[in-house]
Amino acid sequence: MAQSIRLAVIPGDYIGPEVTEEALKVLSAVCPAYDIKVDPTHYDLGAQRYLATGEVLPDTVLDELRQHDAILLGAVGGRPGDPNLPAGILERGLLLRLRFELDHYVNLRPSRSFPGVPTPLASDAEIDFVVVREGTEGLYVGNGGVVRRGTPQELATEVSVNTAFGVERVVRDAFVRAQGRRGRLTLVHKTNVLVHAGGVWSRIVAEVAPEFPDVTVDYLHVDAATIFLVTEPERFDVIVTDNLFGDILTDLAAAVTGGIGLAASGNVNPDRTAPSMFEPVHGSAPSIAGQGKADPTAAILSAALLLGHVGEQAAAQRVEDAVAFDIAARVDAPARTTSQIGDDIAERVSN
Amino acid sequence: MAQSIRLAVIPGDYIGPEVTEEALKVLSAVCPAYDIKVDPTHYDLGAQRYLATGEVLPDTVLDELRQHDAILLGAVGGRPGDPNLPAGILERGLLLRLRFELDHYVNLRPSRSFPGVPTPLASDAEIDFVVVREGTEGLYVGNGGVVRRGTPQELATEVSVNTAFGVERVVRDAFVRAQGRRGRLTLVHKTNVLVHAGGVWSRIVAEVAPEFPDVTVDYLHVDAATIFLVTEPERFDVIVTDNLFGDILTDLAAAVTGGIGLAASGNVNPDRTAPSMFEPVHGSAPSIAGQGKADPTAAILSAALLLGHVGEQAAAQRVEDAVAFDIAARVDAPARTTSQIGDDIAERVSN
Ligand SMILES: CC(C)[C@H](C(=O)O)[C@@H](O)C(=O)O
Ligand SMILES: CC(C)[C@H](C(=O)O)[C@@H](O)C(=O)O
Repeated sequence: MAQSIRLAVIPGDYIGPEVTEEALKVLSAVCPAYDIKVDPTHYDLGAQRYLATGEVLPDTVLDELRQHDAILLGAVGGRPGDPNLPAGILERGLLLRLRFELDHYVNLRPSRSFPGVPTPLASDAEIDFVVVREGTEGLYVGNGGVVRRGTPQELATEVSVNTAFGVERVVRDAFVRAQGRRGRLTLVHKTNVLVHAGGVWSRIVAEVAPEFPDVTVDYLHVDAATIFLVTEPERFDVIVTDNLFGDILTDLAAAVTGGIGLAASGNVNPDRTAPSMFEPVHGSAPSIAGQGKADPTAAILSAALLLGHVGEQAAAQRVEDAVAFDIAARVDAPARTTSQIGDDIAERVSN
Repeated sequence: MAQSIRLAVIPGDYIGPEVTEEALKVLSAVCPAYDIKVDPTHYDLGAQRYLATGEVLPDTVLDELRQHDAILLGAVGGRPGDPNLPAGILERGLLLRLRFELDHYVNLRPSRSFPGVPTPLASDAEIDFVVVREGTEGLYVGNGGVVRRGTPQELATEVSVNTAFGVERVVRDAFVRAQGRRGRLTLVHKTNVLVHAGGVWSRIVAEVAPEFPDVTVDYLHVDAATIFLVTEPERFDVIVTDNLFGDILTDLAAAVTGGIGLAASGNVNPDRTAPSMFEPVHGSAPSIAGQGKADPTAAILSAALLLGHVGEQAAAQRVEDAVAFDIAARVDAPARTTSQIGDDIAERVSN
């Protein structure tokens, strides 16, 4: 059945547009064989737009984004320490605003090892897990404040907000994913210190578990989880965790599986009340922009997640297979530019 | 000059007493040569006491602990999932209560690699850094609460509290340490999301920096810091960070340098208004208790930190050197029991 995907594309800053172009190239190459039409509309958002116009995410643009089936984002962010970019303005005003407004409560971050890819670990055990990071609560809500700013009496607070509603929906999503995988779910939290938030997470996991008798559940404190991520990452199947712990664990997970050049992510609204957004975990990397050095693999894998989300499993699998093949071929091969990697993967998916 | 150390000893649970005994053995062995007298008083606190009596940390015991020059703690904690041990009761009621009551605002966690010790990393670059973790604020204050507990409308909050007073004193401590080491200080936070708390941390680091012109300062988001801890841990000298980030980073740091069997820590009150407390980073490990399998090295290194804190640098160095020698000798040698390791290190320091 022919499907047409109204795709909002936010290339962003620096290497963002470079990797996004390759992801679109691969989408264009894979889609015809599956009778999928991609209809992209580009949106200029990010540091450069903010610096030029003072606009972060105009409401009219947000409204337009809502009219799409999915969003593909490259990376946004200015030069580190740019005095014209207040701390957090793009994060809070654009990236997190999109996650919250579009109710991306499942922040999905798969981690797998690719044979032949060098990793910082001595072990080459096969790694294949997915982190289901809550995306709309926790310390990311922006609750908190400052009194007596800039004085010796300054007091700054940050409030982590956790609701049964918010926790249950992401926990259920994680159980379903575990059921479709190797049947292991690990809750990661810090229940021995964060007893209030920890209580709701533990209670809900315990309550939902009996509905999934084929899923084995365990629990790790976040500090212990970081240890296992480097000593025994193969033990994990599905990790469910809160917004901040998920942020930390997925960067670490990306590092142990070969770097954030390969780490894809989906900001998913499973209820489909708004478009989901797919983006590489990496940032805009100003220092390597414009040199053809950016690895577009994470952006291409994010496009594969997007295809899977809109129901095009076969096309998604084809992209993933092509990426795995391409990565294997990198071993002992000369380095390629961003667009050469995109070309090679595009060619492989269209064959 | 002869010094007598009034030492409060809290062996704790499971392997806690096993490793503490070895740490005391090494202290007894090293002290005579430096004219140090250790006068230990044991305090029975932890899961077993709580389960037997319902007491966590009676005020009278806390008052007695205050009368000491330092505290040596083994590890406290019951069997995982013990229904008679409410989540967090020992952590909040004992460990954290001690840190807060005794104003342990510098939670000091050195990480170094020992030649020959297997680590999960492929690289064997030399690692030698120290994390200065804030110990009395952040998400550890226990601020927060729950409404509609156990219902679908449950809301749980956790409040991170950050004061200029609390941040400045730990930041200053970290600068001084960096000055006495390789002159590099890295602030780790998540200023792009936690803009309120991040603001006070960034501002104070920037304000204090000019007083330490020989210290180079940089900044990493906590997620990026976990990446560098596995890809390039040798880049770090002193890390200063908040209570929760410090908790996470130091377990990861322990893992990359050879495991929490080697990781020592000091809960330090630099103003000496109350005794500082020294403890291995590891827990009470019920599953290996009673078998002579626990590695007492972290406890012994914690005793060395204790000696340094009370001004006995030479004795501290002697213990550290003996430990380094002992660790090097482990390579390709048969495994020893907990007490054999303690004996060997004790013998080496007394020679
Ligand atoms: C840029 C930042 C707001 C974001 C986050 O903290 O979620 C990023 O680190 C990520 O993981 O997507
Ligand atoms: C046991 C727990 C309260 C403690 C902490 O979170 O600080 C531990 O993990 C540590 O690092 O000392």
